[in-house]
Amino acid sequence: MEASLKVHIPKRTLAEGLSVLERIIPSRSSNPVLTYLPIELSEGALVLRGTNGEVDLEVKLPAETEGLGQVLVPAQTFFQIVRSAPGDLVELVFGEGEQLELHSGAFSTQLSTTSPEGYPELLFASDEGGRIGAAQLAQAITRVRYAASTEEYRAIFRGVQIEMSPQGLRTVASDGFRLARYDLPMELPSRKLVVPAKSADEIVRVFKDKEEELVFSVREGSLTLRGDSLRMSVKLMEGEFPDYERVIPQSFVLEALLKAEAFRESLRRVAVLSDRNNHRVNLLFSQERLTIDAEGDYGRGREELPLRSTGEPQLMVAYNAQYLIDALGPVEGEVRVRLSGPTSPTLLQAVEDEGYLAVVVPLRV
Amino acid sequence: MEASLKVHIPKRTLAEGLSVLERIIPSRSSNPVLTYLPIELSEGALVLRGTNGEVDLEVKLPAETEGLGQVLVPAQTFFQIVRSAPGDLVELVFGEGEQLELHSGAFSTQLSTTSPEGYPELLFASDEGGRIGAAQLAQAITRVRYAASTEEYRAIFRGVQIEMSPQGLRTVASDGFRLARYDLPMELPSRKLVVPAKSADEIVRVFKDKEEELVFSVREGSLTLRGDSLRMSVKLMEGEFPDYERVIPQSFVLEALLKAEAFRESLRRVAVLSDRNNHRVNLLFSQERLTIDAEGDYGRGREELPLRSTGEPQLMVAYNAQYLIDALGPVEGEVRVRLSGPTSPTLLQAVEDEGYLAVVVPLRV
Repeated sequence: MEASLKVHIPKRTLAEGLSVLERIIPSRSSNPVLTYLPIELSEGALVLRGTNGEVDLEVKLPAETEGLGQVLVPAQTFFQIVRSAPGDLVELVFGEGEQLELHSGAFSTQLSTTSPEGYPELLFASDEGGRIGAAQLAQAITRVRYAASTEEYRAIFRGVQIEMSPQGLRTVASDGFRLARYDLPMELPSRKLVVPAKSADEIVRVFKDKEEELVFSVREGSLTLRGDSLRMSVKLMEGEFPDYERVIPQSFVLEALLKAEAFRESLRRVAVLSDRNNHRVNLLFSQERLTIDAEGDYGRGREELPLRSTGEPQLMVAYNAQYLIDALGPVEGEVRVRLSGPTSPTLLQAVEDEGYLAVVVPLRV
Repeated sequence: MEASLKVHIPKRTLAEGLSVLERIIPSRSSNPVLTYLPIELSEGALVLRGTNGEVDLEVKLPAETEGLGQVLVPAQTFFQIVRSAPGDLVELVFGEGEQLELHSGAFSTQLSTTSPEGYPELLFASDEGGRIGAAQLAQAITRVRYAASTEEYRAIFRGVQIEMSPQGLRTVASDGFRLARYDLPMELPSRKLVVPAKSADEIVRVFKDKEEELVFSVREGSLTLRGDSLRMSVKLMEGEFPDYERVIPQSFVLEALLKAEAFRESLRRVAVLSDRNNHRVNLLFSQERLTIDAEGDYGRGREELPLRSTGEPQLMVAYNAQYLIDALGPVEGEVRVRLSGPTSPTLLQAVEDEGYLAVVVPLRV
């Protein structure tokens, strides 16, 4: 078959590009065209795209190309074929009669393609609203992501709020029973936006290991992030978080310093015995010791940990163990636990990473 | 609390013993007592048991014990607690009032227990029907297991047949469309039995890394296997396989030698394009080359492999790709493919492991 459109690309480059798109492109969809992968041949590059309706993504791979053109191929099949291709190099030939040929080593395939006309247009804003480090953005989201709600009720809490200001980048998540906040000093133009938690996960997945700076733009309800070879556009949620600062306690009756990892592990052990519904653990803070206990259908568990505390000589507070375990997740080294009373919110702060703060509301006694 | 029954045991020993039982003991059951773990304190040993109704298992762990006794504890909770225990040593105290105390480092728990009376009696035959290497038995089952049926129809094929004789150990599995047979020379008393495939998986899992010899016994519809610290009893299926030797072809029109792994990988690649229902791949055997191709909804795939063949200069045969891939699974190095015609069964043999043989029935043209 004579064909004028052709590209040669290392298998590894192509497979890495596809792996970024693989989680975005749905394997089933009420709009079947979204299960296809648009492949575009541009000058010196192979451009791959995908969308799940919430997140649009574009990957540009440098490649030896001949000609310009675009086709849609069944994405899952294409992923499988490239992953298992036997050669180091992959040749794609945009043949006539709606066929895409792929050659690699002794293997060759002719894939049925579909006209790109039915595919939705992916819009990536091209203006510059500011710049932000890819890894920093991912880090700031990761620290608070766990606290986002999964309930239909108060839908805004199903998102992660990103606040930019000349003081820095702030991320916040909450489900009404707990809150996580992270501050990273940097100079940014003032903006406040809420990214759906699942889309926030995609930002983290795609950018967490990148060292580059991203150009961002917020327009028409979308956040666009542009890097060297990647462009991502994320639909934003409407509205913003209600005033969360008022749930962050300001005065405390007891403060304790603990090793975060040991605290987390103790909670995990004792929580095995806790009530299956509310995961209730009782924490007794005294001057040199924290006693954690729980009781459920299968018995009781108990563990003691050393701590240093100031304030009241003794205080008993009950929590959902999972909320404490989650809140300790981003903390390395020591954690400062600041109690405002047995029924008032408790503050947790990472001693070695002052940007991180978590609030957990105790269970009623 | 004063208690007279006590055991000290390294956490690692206990955790390893439990890991053997963990897959057997159901986390839910229509007979809830099966979700409990019977713990018995005997002289110098802690004995743990479990059953899923098909497979009974007993693990005997050497331990410093005080007193004799038995309790039932909720198995999943106990597994979790031991896995996360903070100390190197675990102390179990059989307390009064139906409590089992567990202490490890700064952690302690009191587990609710249940009287062992409701638990079914696990019977492990104590006579000796013969001896067999644990790893050899596991190996012989592993080689053929893939070919067992998952269909309700012809239920006997949902098992693995184990044939013992003075010539050796033979395992066979089939689903009517393919067959796998493995022979391991050794001297055994003559017996023929069929183990349900899922129970056969448990035999493999428990014994595959053991170097010991097992004493076995076949009585009252059960196979009992006894090792140094493990006893297992497996319910057998009733009946035996119909005469399978007649489906093994005896005369051939073409024989080919191929590298098994390359063959398997080519089949995997081309099969991506095959029809989703029957996974049909077409194999064209010619004198120096095998051409594999497939065609399905998404296009066509094709690959060529070098081979050495004798017999007919050319033969085209179609297969379910998955059946060939499975049949090649146990083959390392070269495979001998022996064809008796385009619609007659094909034989596959491992050149370097003469005990292994597979039969695959081609798809109709």
